[in-house]
Amino acid sequence: MPDALDPRFADYAGLRDVELRKSLEAEHGLFIAEGEKVIRRAVAAGYPVRSVLLTRRWAASLDDVLAGLGDRVHVVDDDVMEKIAGFPVHRGALASMERRPLPAVAEILGGTSGAGAGAGDAPRRVLVLEDLVDHGNVGAIFRCAAALGVEAVILSPRCADPLYRRSVKVSMGAVFAIPYARMENWYSGLEELRAAGCRLLALTPDQGATPMDEAEMGERVALLLGSEGDGLSSRWLHEADEPVCIPMSPAAMDLGVDSLNVVAAAAIACHGLMRGTARP
Amino acid sequence: MPDALDPRFADYAGLRDVELRKSLEAEHGLFIAEGEKVIRRAVAAGYPVRSVLLTRRWAASLDDVLAGLGDRVHVVDDDVMEKIAGFPVHRGALASMERRPLPAVAEILGGTSGAGAGAGDAPRRVLVLEDLVDHGNVGAIFRCAAALGVEAVILSPRCADPLYRRSVKVSMGAVFAIPYARMENWYSGLEELRAAGCRLLALTPDQGATPMDEAEMGERVALLLGSEGDGLSSRWLHEADEPVCIPMSPAAMDLGVDSLNVVAAAAIACHGLMRGTARP
Repeated sequence: MPDALDPRFADYAGLRDVELRKSLEAEHGLFIAEGEKVIRRAVAAGYPVRSVLLTRRWAASLDDVLAGLGDRVHVVDDDVMEKIAGFPVHRGALASMERRPLPAVAEILGGTSGAGAGAGDAPRRVLVLEDLVDHGNVGAIFRCAAALGVEAVILSPRCADPLYRRSVKVSMGAVFAIPYARMENWYSGLEELRAAGCRLLALTPDQGATPMDEAEMGERVALLLGSEGDGLSSRWLHEADEPVCIPMSPAAMDLGVDSLNVVAAAAIACHGLMRGTARP
Repeated sequence: MPDALDPRFADYAGLRDVELRKSLEAEHGLFIAEGEKVIRRAVAAGYPVRSVLLTRRWAASLDDVLAGLGDRVHVVDDDVMEKIAGFPVHRGALASMERRPLPAVAEILGGTSGAGAGAGDAPRRVLVLEDLVDHGNVGAIFRCAAALGVEAVILSPRCADPLYRRSVKVSMGAVFAIPYARMENWYSGLEELRAAGCRLLALTPDQGATPMDEAEMGERVALLLGSEGDGLSSRWLHEADEPVCIPMSPAAMDLGVDSLNVVAAAAIACHGLMRGTARP
């Protein structure tokens, strides 16, 4: 019976320990894909497989993916899986994948990078995430963005990692479908977007801002989305061309339901971004 | 030191055990509000407090709520709290609240029930949830619905409970702000909505359906939203006046990002429902 401390399983250690994972994944340049569907999407997106850890039940359905991996496929019992991962892995299959170097922001904006929607064309609808901390939210926002035609995502330096296990899982693999880059500098980060001709819309809960559906779009638009608690920094809010909001019900605000969660707001905003984007 | 098995704490037993909680809450007619903000909103909405269980740190900030509750306030140490609840309660305060009898669907549609948005007026925008199973999704959808001016929610007989702890928590208390009722009969449940003059829109991922933003609205609209996995039943889909969809990016669908999660879809759809609802 395999031992949970076996070095072959080192990639899968402490999957619920965010700090441990951050340093382990950075050091070894890996990320974890969970569940058959997401593993398939990671492989299809061209990420090399380091190893796969799965229970017997799942081995058959991933047959084609496992072919050629040789002794990097580890089939274990449920309890061993749980011991290695540190929690019961309901989806029964984990893959350790090699990260690839992230493209630079300029590459993304030039449309020369990525396998995602609009690869080859300069992206006309860009989402910019400032300091989101929750991996699930980042994943959910990537899923919305990809489904609704956003063609690239730019992250602030401190924004949570889209390839963290939970981001990948919640995104259902959308983090592989949409090209993204991370700014090197928060303070001057928006300049590059503006220089690339993006009109900068800042999403704010302030109901005095322009309703999203009425905002002037232009050929290239970047929508700035702030962190879960504080929203956008005042610097970014002031640097944007136009603050935009999702109009809320006055009655609800009276009742204390005074905000949308960040994923719901992002979904509505991405839907609004689609206006006038039909490519010929 | 209080004992976790003390009968005074029976209302808080096994908070992560869904089946246990369902029967316990039904039997005693209670629900659990978690965290200062949500407890305050439950109290403000008029739900009577059965008892409050909280750690020392939180007692001061809930002073006014606790006044008059006498020996129904239980201040305990963190570890006792964790033993009683079965998990570490980060928000440090739990209240057991009395449920009230749910209004009938006819009452909700007549506008004679509820403390929520539009109470007193017959609701013009109604959300109908068919068989959603995830409590977090139900809570998140209530939050969107309330913020975006939906005036009532109707649940199918098997839809998850909006007053389950996780629903309440994720909704940030929006489940108290918006009147809702549960149908008695799934098969004939939509008849009552139609008889009340509601135009029935069925949300579907089918991209051949009318885009939500182009759907004919009318004075009263009920939007039907299906379960996380299967979407709407074919019966409800066929009974609706018009199927509607959220248009997705064709490029993303090619990449396998072929759907929005139910909360994102609900958010966009509720936003679309607001058209033409400004009350004079």
